[in-house]
Amino acid sequence: MIDAERFLDDLRTLRTFGATGTGVVRPSFSDVDMAARRWLHGRYADAGLDASIDGIGNVFGRSPNPGPALLIGSHSDTQPTGGWLDGAYGVIVGLEVARAIRENPDTADLAVDAVAWVDEESTYVSCLGSRSFCGLVDPVELEGAASPDGHSLADALAGADLSGEPDRWSDREYAGFLEAHIEQGPALEASGDLLGVVTAIVGARTLILRFAGQQNHAGTTPMRLRRDAGRAAIHFGHAIDQRFGELTGDRTVWTIGDIRFEPGASSIIPGRAELTLQFRDPDGDLLERFEQEVRRIATDIADATAVDITIEPDGRAIEPAAMDQRLHDALAAAAEAEAPGHWTSMPSAAVHDAMFLADRMPAGMLFVPSIGGISHDFAEDTTDDDLVRGVRTMAAAAVELAQRSMGSGLT
Amino acid sequence: MIDAERFLDDLRTLRTFGATGTGVVRPSFSDVDMAARRWLHGRYADAGLDASIDGIGNVFGRSPNPGPALLIGSHSDTQPTGGWLDGAYGVIVGLEVARAIRENPDTADLAVDAVAWVDEESTYVSCLGSRSFCGLVDPVELEGAASPDGHSLADALAGADLSGEPDRWSDREYAGFLEAHIEQGPALEASGDLLGVVTAIVGARTLILRFAGQQNHAGTTPMRLRRDAGRAAIHFGHAIDQRFGELTGDRTVWTIGDIRFEPGASSIIPGRAELTLQFRDPDGDLLERFEQEVRRIATDIADATAVDITIEPDGRAIEPAAMDQRLHDALAAAAEAEAPGHWTSMPSAAVHDAMFLADRMPAGMLFVPSIGGISHDFAEDTTDDDLVRGVRTMAAAAVELAQRSMGSGLT
Repeated sequence: MIDAERFLDDLRTLRTFGATGTGVVRPSFSDVDMAARRWLHGRYADAGLDASIDGIGNVFGRSPNPGPALLIGSHSDTQPTGGWLDGAYGVIVGLEVARAIRENPDTADLAVDAVAWVDEESTYVSCLGSRSFCGLVDPVELEGAASPDGHSLADALAGADLSGEPDRWSDREYAGFLEAHIEQGPALEASGDLLGVVTAIVGARTLILRFAGQQNHAGTTPMRLRRDAGRAAIHFGHAIDQRFGELTGDRTVWTIGDIRFEPGASSIIPGRAELTLQFRDPDGDLLERFEQEVRRIATDIADATAVDITIEPDGRAIEPAAMDQRLHDALAAAAEAEAPGHWTSMPSAAVHDAMFLADRMPAGMLFVPSIGGISHDFAEDTTDDDLVRGVRTMAAAAVELAQRSMGSGLT
Repeated sequence: MIDAERFLDDLRTLRTFGATGTGVVRPSFSDVDMAARRWLHGRYADAGLDASIDGIGNVFGRSPNPGPALLIGSHSDTQPTGGWLDGAYGVIVGLEVARAIRENPDTADLAVDAVAWVDEESTYVSCLGSRSFCGLVDPVELEGAASPDGHSLADALAGADLSGEPDRWSDREYAGFLEAHIEQGPALEASGDLLGVVTAIVGARTLILRFAGQQNHAGTTPMRLRRDAGRAAIHFGHAIDQRFGELTGDRTVWTIGDIRFEPGASSIIPGRAELTLQFRDPDGDLLERFEQEVRRIATDIADATAVDITIEPDGRAIEPAAMDQRLHDALAAAAEAEAPGHWTSMPSAAVHDAMFLADRMPAGMLFVPSIGGISHDFAEDTTDDDLVRGVRTMAAAAVELAQRSMGSGLT
């Protein structure tokens, strides 16, 4: 039922909004982002869907059929220097699946809606569109919100002629949310799988560790009299690596992404050091256990080095979000039909809009491979075969789920 | 024979040239530095010494007696934000000892010269005065030499009306060089000793380690597929700490003074990292062994992490300089007389002019305590009692050595 050429044409057309070399620069509320949203609005309308742009910038194409409706989509904004598929792929999958279901007489009575969320990539506020829809934005977050170049969210909304009032998940009865996305990692390519059915979106905690010792002369201060903040930071980083390696689940990742010493000179013992430690896992209990280990290790190293260590969260902890088992199973059945023996269940290691939708309705996600695992980069790409396999799988799962929801309701 | 009040008065007068709060700002060739040099020239002349300022800015007060002469002094320039005693103390010790010996009928026939070297603190060229005197400056070093604020050495010399031509060690017969200095470290204070007789000035090697891995997404890249340059740098730093701790001599020190990750973001695996490792020891063989260990550890970590590691020296290696045993013993005998049981033999962990003089003549150094081990800081200080004990000790050793050199010659 999927029209592969039409699907790829729409995906390539969306790419033209903000195309820059092989990549795309389409930050939320920019002129090209709003132009792309108006184009999507037109494509939804052409497909016979009720098209609208809500007050926060989300574009909806709603089936005229009554709910409970299956909502399918992703975000159409990009990173500051983004790839052409991150978000865009899932948006056009939503368009094509809702369109194909609508035009096929056998499925035309199903309620399948499409959506393009705004600002998943956090130009102003991370996952602004999906979180606003779900009622998961604290108004305080919006007050001082601004882009990295200092443009306020209020100005951006006014410039895009948006009221700031989102549509809400409670306005319509929903059967669930499905999101297709490129994997943005190397796991599918490494295992030779063609599709990934997401089990959970991992949670993440980011901590800032600050080490305060005593700055001193690197020649005249004997080792035993030092309170070297840099040395303490290095010992901490090493201990974390050892200990997390022992505790880790299969999918746990941890990263010390930044570290700084002050004053940072070859002949001066660092008086201060700072590092960021981020760890992600689909299991919230394991995240909590890791954080307890961080605190224990920091205490041990502070005691051993006479360096004071403070720990502070960098932003909100992101709790893991489990995908709905029935949606997972429907996607898995469709994946087995499209790629027998060449699909896998896997967690998502990156944040997605589906994470927040999962708080309000059953949610499921489907991954297609990323070439070389590359994402958030102009070089991001996926083969046409893989892109089409994904939309076919999503369509099959959507029909199955929408048919079931007509009877019993999935919610 | 020492006039303690006169000595302390002269030391306090030198402090007024560039006094800033409790510290001193008297960088080489600045107006206050040159004014201080002209004042020293006057004080040498008042003491009956042949006073001169050579073409590079060194100030000499030479005994009219024939050599072999004992040369005593230090540097009168300061760090950008320096303490009042670093260098200045040894300069005024030289003035007072040469003056006291000259005015005492029992010692007036001894040849004891005083000196104030220029630019030990490297505003333009490290130890410029003493190294020029010793013929240990490569002319290439001088060509592009400039201060951190971009003022060229050539302009500085011209502005100070200096020819650039130094006096030379070979112009006169020398018996040896003695330098008094504040310790600039906490060892004397920690051991309760009042004087330190220097055995050797430590050598130092500074290496820059560069780690090149693969930048990637900190969520989607599994641990086993990472080539994390930051993680390799942390493991390297930890391994160095473990291994150097096993190999170390009593006086070895090592410092990772700076470290940087690129791009340095909490959600990105560092693709590149860089750190500086400096290690110092009085034993040149041990320095060489440490460097071999650095290379071995880097190879092991590169193999284990698939991160490329390159090693490059940061500037010239500084070879350790042994002090002359006879000068050490004369200072030790005088220290035992001034502070029975409360002095120690020790290496100097910091670079001094005596390091270069040691290439050309017997050299010796005497340390007095630094309060709290603090130096290169406005808070640098030493008690009057300790300052006076140092000049008395130096005078006694100088008389002993100068008397001996009149007969046999020490060189």
